Amino acid sequence: MPQFLSTTNPDFETAFTELLGMKRESDADVDAAVAAIIADVRARGDAALIEYTARFDRLTLTPETLAFTEQEIDAAIATVPPAEREALELAAARIRAYHERQRPDDARWVDDSGAELGWRWSAVSAAGLYVPGGLASYPSSVLMNAIPAQVAGVERLCICAPTPDGIANPLVLLAARLSGVETVYRLGGAQAVAAMAYGTETVQAVDKITGPGNAFVAAAKRRVFGQVGIDMIAGPSEILVIADADNDPDWVAVDLLSQAEHDESAQSILITDDYDFGQAVAAAVNKRLETLERRKIAGKSWDDFGAVITVRNLDEAIALSDRVAPEHLELACADAQGVSERIRHAGAIFIGAWTPEAIGDYVGGPNHVLPTARSARFSSGLSVLDFMKRTTLARMTPEALAAIGPAAETLAISEGLEAHGLSVRARLERLNK
Amino acid sequence: MPQFLSTTNPDFETAFTELLGMKRESDADVDAAVAAIIADVRARGDAALIEYTARFDRLTLTPETLAFTEQEIDAAIATVPPAEREALELAAARIRAYHERQRPDDARWVDDSGAELGWRWSAVSAAGLYVPGGLASYPSSVLMNAIPAQVAGVERLCICAPTPDGIANPLVLLAARLSGVETVYRLGGAQAVAAMAYGTETVQAVDKITGPGNAFVAAAKRRVFGQVGIDMIAGPSEILVIADADNDPDWVAVDLLSQAEHDESAQSILITDDYDFGQAVAAAVNKRLETLERRKIAGKSWDDFGAVITVRNLDEAIALSDRVAPEHLELACADAQGVSERIRHAGAIFIGAWTPEAIGDYVGGPNHVLPTARSARFSSGLSVLDFMKRTTLARMTPEALAAIGPAAETLAISEGLEAHGLSVRARLERLNK
Repeated sequence: MPQFLSTTNPDFETAFTELLGMKRESDADVDAAVAAIIADVRARGDAALIEYTARFDRLTLTPETLAFTEQEIDAAIATVPPAEREALELAAARIRAYHERQRPDDARWVDDSGAELGWRWSAVSAAGLYVPGGLASYPSSVLMNAIPAQVAGVERLCICAPTPDGIANPLVLLAARLSGVETVYRLGGAQAVAAMAYGTETVQAVDKITGPGNAFVAAAKRRVFGQVGIDMIAGPSEILVIADADNDPDWVAVDLLSQAEHDESAQSILITDDYDFGQAVAAAVNKRLETLERRKIAGKSWDDFGAVITVRNLDEAIALSDRVAPEHLELACADAQGVSERIRHAGAIFIGAWTPEAIGDYVGGPNHVLPTARSARFSSGLSVLDFMKRTTLARMTPEALAAIGPAAETLAISEGLEAHGLSVRARLERLNK
Repeated sequence: MPQFLSTTNPDFETAFTELLGMKRESDADVDAAVAAIIADVRARGDAALIEYTARFDRLTLTPETLAFTEQEIDAAIATVPPAEREALELAAARIRAYHERQRPDDARWVDDSGAELGWRWSAVSAAGLYVPGGLASYPSSVLMNAIPAQVAGVERLCICAPTPDGIANPLVLLAARLSGVETVYRLGGAQAVAAMAYGTETVQAVDKITGPGNAFVAAAKRRVFGQVGIDMIAGPSEILVIADADNDPDWVAVDLLSQAEHDESAQSILITDDYDFGQAVAAAVNKRLETLERRKIAGKSWDDFGAVITVRNLDEAIALSDRVAPEHLELACADAQGVSERIRHAGAIFIGAWTPEAIGDYVGGPNHVLPTARSARFSSGLSVLDFMKRTTLARMTPEALAAIGPAAETLAISEGLEAHGLSVRARLERLNK
């Protein structure tokens, strides 16, 4: 059973703080094993990759079969039913259209001193995307990771996706094709991350690695960070729905379940200003759980981490939501647009009852890689900017240096950095001659 | 003696690869000690802070004296000589003017399907800046960290700065005042980072921690990452100068030394298309080293990690520079502007011989917190964006959902996520009634 809280209850603050602090993931201690795998891939390259793939994926590879050939990809894609292909193409087009608006602007100006200042954005040269195997092998995640990279202008994009027992997901290969991925390797786990970070005889190293993965993949990404850039380390998914009584309880119920079905550690929270509506939603969840395919996972998530919170009014709902800083926030209430403008911390907001969160997972356009575990307080979802970096630019004229150089010299000397001061002084002396 | 390389030498590729791979930092293994300090601060709060400060900084504090009072800050600031105050004010004004241009734009549009999409940027609520004590207590770094946060709209800004034996740097306090910092704590080390990440009775927790620090501070930042956001973990400073023979060797020499004097692990590299000019610069470095205050540090950095690379032409220089992906790049060559446009990987570019890197450390305007250790391949210097996060927005109309919902349902089902599909289906069924 989920928790039922109410802000009118004197114990509310304690209960809500506990809900916020709930630990939903166990820290699998795989760090030593991951360190050994990375060291081995750095030392032995392809040979290590082939050995780990045989051991973990029961698949015998050679350097020649580490990557799919174009023909293999063509053949797999040919098996995709037309309806799924069209859906994936629509998703790709909409995700691309959204992300193309994220391309940042360069800037350049001359200020009062005559100094020319600015910055310039440029794409990361090469990026590698990790795509999990098995149940969590989501073609939508391929699009959400690869398209922002492609829009950013990344020149070389590769994917590592394990193929346990040699079984590949044709939709993943189609998604890779639709988003400009050059090479897809049959590689998974820490060994795949190591190969992308350091390169082997066959796998070319990249500069940035993104994409979800299990505890081994997450630990490997943490370890190679610095050698390459990484995206966030994502935790279990979350949804918070703010809904008033003027809603169909079943709609809200399936929305809550659409997060709960991801993972037993997922969290679904309803905040409502109507106690009876909250009860009706909980009843609708139970009804849907009777028949849902993934009822075991969704049921456990809802029982362990679900919550229905009754508040006095919308102001309370907004304040509590900002404390949760949810990954996904649905607003199914009067003036949803106005409420959305008062929210400060959320990864993505779905405005109005006609916007189920699942739209954002596939075809809405915005990215579905979003900050979890309250990190929306300080971080953002994946975007084109994650595959770009900014170089700052400065050009002094002799006059500009004469105007602002003495202050730099003064500060350098006060910080005990004589050579810094001399580098300005040497130039100013030329001017004074 | 620095290394002298030439692209005409058959061993060049090997030697350059070694130069790129040089390990300049020893990994102090402080992680266990840091974990214990963080756990202790979480458990015992102020009492732990007071105990560690007594032990490490030889300073007896109480909860009331953890932070400087306004009067204490006023008194310290009154001791700052006018020239230094004016220089710091000029720096603050120029840094603010540059960073104000970095404020990102929100976006909102309606697409063909009738879906309303967009995003909105918002500031992190509270940020904490770490300022090292002792020799590396740089007021310029206070400005470079605090002003972007202030421009971003961060509501609450605090600083932790150790005051060994109770000695504070008045310029640091002035810089804090100039950049909107609310509270300055007399705290350093891992205990300061823990206090900002988790809060104590006296120290309010923040959402983002930035600023440089020693191995303990860096390890603590890595550990609290996830609980709060952090900036990059900076490595030793670097400069790469591309200079042709039409330069004063002494100017280039002091520029190289201005990085070398930071730290024995700093690295200064000259790339030139004129062998004799490279020799002249090396001679000028030696001459300056005879009298430089920090000649011991700068000399060791130059001997251990410095390099003079002779290339056949500018094309080679550009290609090598992009492989180094330097933190600071100075272009002192013909058509420096044109060359700057061909550079792909650099934290900051200083264009033309009249733009010494030291200008960028203080008064240029761009941020001096920049990616080190080749990470300019995938990351950027500190900016206003580091103190903001983006929330994506989506609002469907019934018509928009009818147009794109079926594709979402198809993909959800193909990914085995039934409730995702149902959340769309339940709404589409209402439309069809």
